[in-house]
Amino acid sequence: MLRHNATPTAMSAPVAPFPQVDHQRAVFTDGLALDCGVTLAGHTVAYRTYGKLNTARSNAVLVCHALTGDQYLAETNPVTGKPGWWDNIVGPDRPLDTNRYFLICANVLGGCMGSTGPREEMTDAEGHGMGRPWGTDFPNITVRDMVRQQKRLVEHLGIDRLLAVVGGSLGGMQALQWAACYPESVFACVPIATAAQHSAQNIAFDEVGRAAIHADPDYRGGRYWEDGRVPAQGLSVARMVAHITYLSEEALQRKFGRKLRGAQTLTLLEDVFEVQSYLRYQGSTFVRRFDANSYLTITRATDYLDIAAEHEGSLARAFAGTATRFFVASFSSDWLYPTSESRHIVRALNAAAANVSFVEFPTDKGHDAFLLEEPEFHRALGGFLAGCAARLGV
Amino acid sequence: MLRHNATPTAMSAPVAPFPQVDHQRAVFTDGLALDCGVTLAGHTVAYRTYGKLNTARSNAVLVCHALTGDQYLAETNPVTGKPGWWDNIVGPDRPLDTNRYFLICANVLGGCMGSTGPREEMTDAEGHGMGRPWGTDFPNITVRDMVRQQKRLVEHLGIDRLLAVVGGSLGGMQALQWAACYPESVFACVPIATAAQHSAQNIAFDEVGRAAIHADPDYRGGRYWEDGRVPAQGLSVARMVAHITYLSEEALQRKFGRKLRGAQTLTLLEDVFEVQSYLRYQGSTFVRRFDANSYLTITRATDYLDIAAEHEGSLARAFAGTATRFFVASFSSDWLYPTSESRHIVRALNAAAANVSFVEFPTDKGHDAFLLEEPEFHRALGGFLAGCAARLGV
Repeated sequence: MLRHNATPTAMSAPVAPFPQVDHQRAVFTDGLALDCGVTLAGHTVAYRTYGKLNTARSNAVLVCHALTGDQYLAETNPVTGKPGWWDNIVGPDRPLDTNRYFLICANVLGGCMGSTGPREEMTDAEGHGMGRPWGTDFPNITVRDMVRQQKRLVEHLGIDRLLAVVGGSLGGMQALQWAACYPESVFACVPIATAAQHSAQNIAFDEVGRAAIHADPDYRGGRYWEDGRVPAQGLSVARMVAHITYLSEEALQRKFGRKLRGAQTLTLLEDVFEVQSYLRYQGSTFVRRFDANSYLTITRATDYLDIAAEHEGSLARAFAGTATRFFVASFSSDWLYPTSESRHIVRALNAAAANVSFVEFPTDKGHDAFLLEEPEFHRALGGFLAGCAARLGV
Repeated sequence: MLRHNATPTAMSAPVAPFPQVDHQRAVFTDGLALDCGVTLAGHTVAYRTYGKLNTARSNAVLVCHALTGDQYLAETNPVTGKPGWWDNIVGPDRPLDTNRYFLICANVLGGCMGSTGPREEMTDAEGHGMGRPWGTDFPNITVRDMVRQQKRLVEHLGIDRLLAVVGGSLGGMQALQWAACYPESVFACVPIATAAQHSAQNIAFDEVGRAAIHADPDYRGGRYWEDGRVPAQGLSVARMVAHITYLSEEALQRKFGRKLRGAQTLTLLEDVFEVQSYLRYQGSTFVRRFDANSYLTITRATDYLDIAAEHEGSLARAFAGTATRFFVASFSSDWLYPTSESRHIVRALNAAAANVSFVEFPTDKGHDAFLLEEPEFHRALGGFLAGCAARLGV
């Protein structure tokens, strides 16, 4: 297990690849046909479950994680040693009530926590291991591909219909794709703080992160695994810029303002603002837990996402005739996926005559609010799920 | 002169330092005492003027440039070959009317277009050249230091009082500092799309740019001038992220949306979004005209700026008793220096009982609006200056 020390200074030392951890996995030997035309002969899903599947198999909730999240939803993460990323809303009598629901959380295809992705062993057309990681030879995947793979896992667990698919950010994109691709397998869909496609600004910020990774000489055209180094500085810059977009201007101002690290007033010498130190720390810890090629793969998938384009330019058509119940949630100070993006989704669902409720939660915490203490959001999420469960007699 | 080719692909080739150009300069041999405690024994200001100084010496307008601007306000730039950065509002019968005003524009202290800065020859305590650039040995400067140096230039030109000091962004910070430091030398002050201090988010974005430069191995701890290479990739990433903050989300969406370069629909192979290509181009051209150590020096100066802190925590106190007339301008979609920052300035000026008018101009062009075609802004700026000129009988 890795300890995270505060290292606010620049990282000059090489960062070792993060430790191999035995993740719980399901291995599939039948092919997974991807949107790009490639078929993965075999593939693996690393996943965790919480709570118990009932005998009717009607209480399963799939939780989809965000860009840098993973399957460790509500338990100590074996790589970071930190609590699960949604620990605050998963558990007995919490909104994602483990006494009532059977929760499933899987590392996304293309991720770096045990599911098939750039960090895992490359396989040939017959599914034989090739003794090297996929790296940049990993095919370009889509959010729909991630969802296709999750469908296999859900079937493998013996579940025909999910009570709900829930997720924030990239997780919300997956929830929408589930509802679009497998409407009969999704009783309820909860896309949170998300969008049905990236804006030009979303793509632009992703591109800065990718450019920073590509600029790192340790990236070595993506073949950094050959010498055991990782492009830590580039990946760190990518994380820093992304992190700014996760927080609102107000949250940054409230937390840091113009406070200096270890000084009251500017000396004009070695001054470091608290916000600088915080960002450097975010960058330096991230590189110990995340793979650069995964970062490139997943950000590309989010930029590619365009559910309307997959349905002749009409987002409403993606949900035509759906019986799924939707709960769309946004946060007032989220400028990465602002409320206008959620409204766009809601308008399409309305045009499809879908059953949809929509709430914008007032907060100054920005995009990250979906991960933080937001009691009103938690009550609403818990209430919506409980209502759905009651409908199904769960 | 350098030609700018569209190079949307990653820059792997070394970028040569930009060409030496004979800039018009004023050389000062008396010392310039800086806020950090260092005194520059000698210093140089590279500047340009437009129009004619009248016999009463009452028609001089100092125009202050932004972070990556320069003194080539309204003529072909000898380094880039492009028109001056405010060509659209400078000239006969334009808002900055060269028939009426004598315009002065100087490269800022710390810049890289001929004024004393990291790219220029380092001097010792006696002002003797040391045969190498200042590089990272250039002292940490402030916006007030920039203004102190400009005051020398203005005196050198025989001008006691400026009709106006005008500037956008960092230029607006300089305009505010002029009014705070030399109220009797500033008849009118026009801070545009600016702030009296950086927010945590402003500092955070600057920090990403600096981290990208520091991460570039060609930066070599700032001593890149020793081998004639420049940290092109790091500086390019810095420019890319900054450029996003100059544009509104709406402007990016309108200009680029999700358009692909050379394709109608996603192939999931070599797809490049137009916005990616645009950002890469912005990055790759920037490194041919700007110095990385200058970028670090000037962004630090903007982060350090805190006019209130210089006046016992009170921005109003900075302008106590001022007779200067202020015209504060902001743009509705500017999220780098949003209207709230201008309002903060206006409230302080009101508290100082100053003569101030304030307009927020509606536009979707973001921060860059101050450089673009904004007829309403241009009319208001021209009208304000003409009114001031009439007061002084110019």
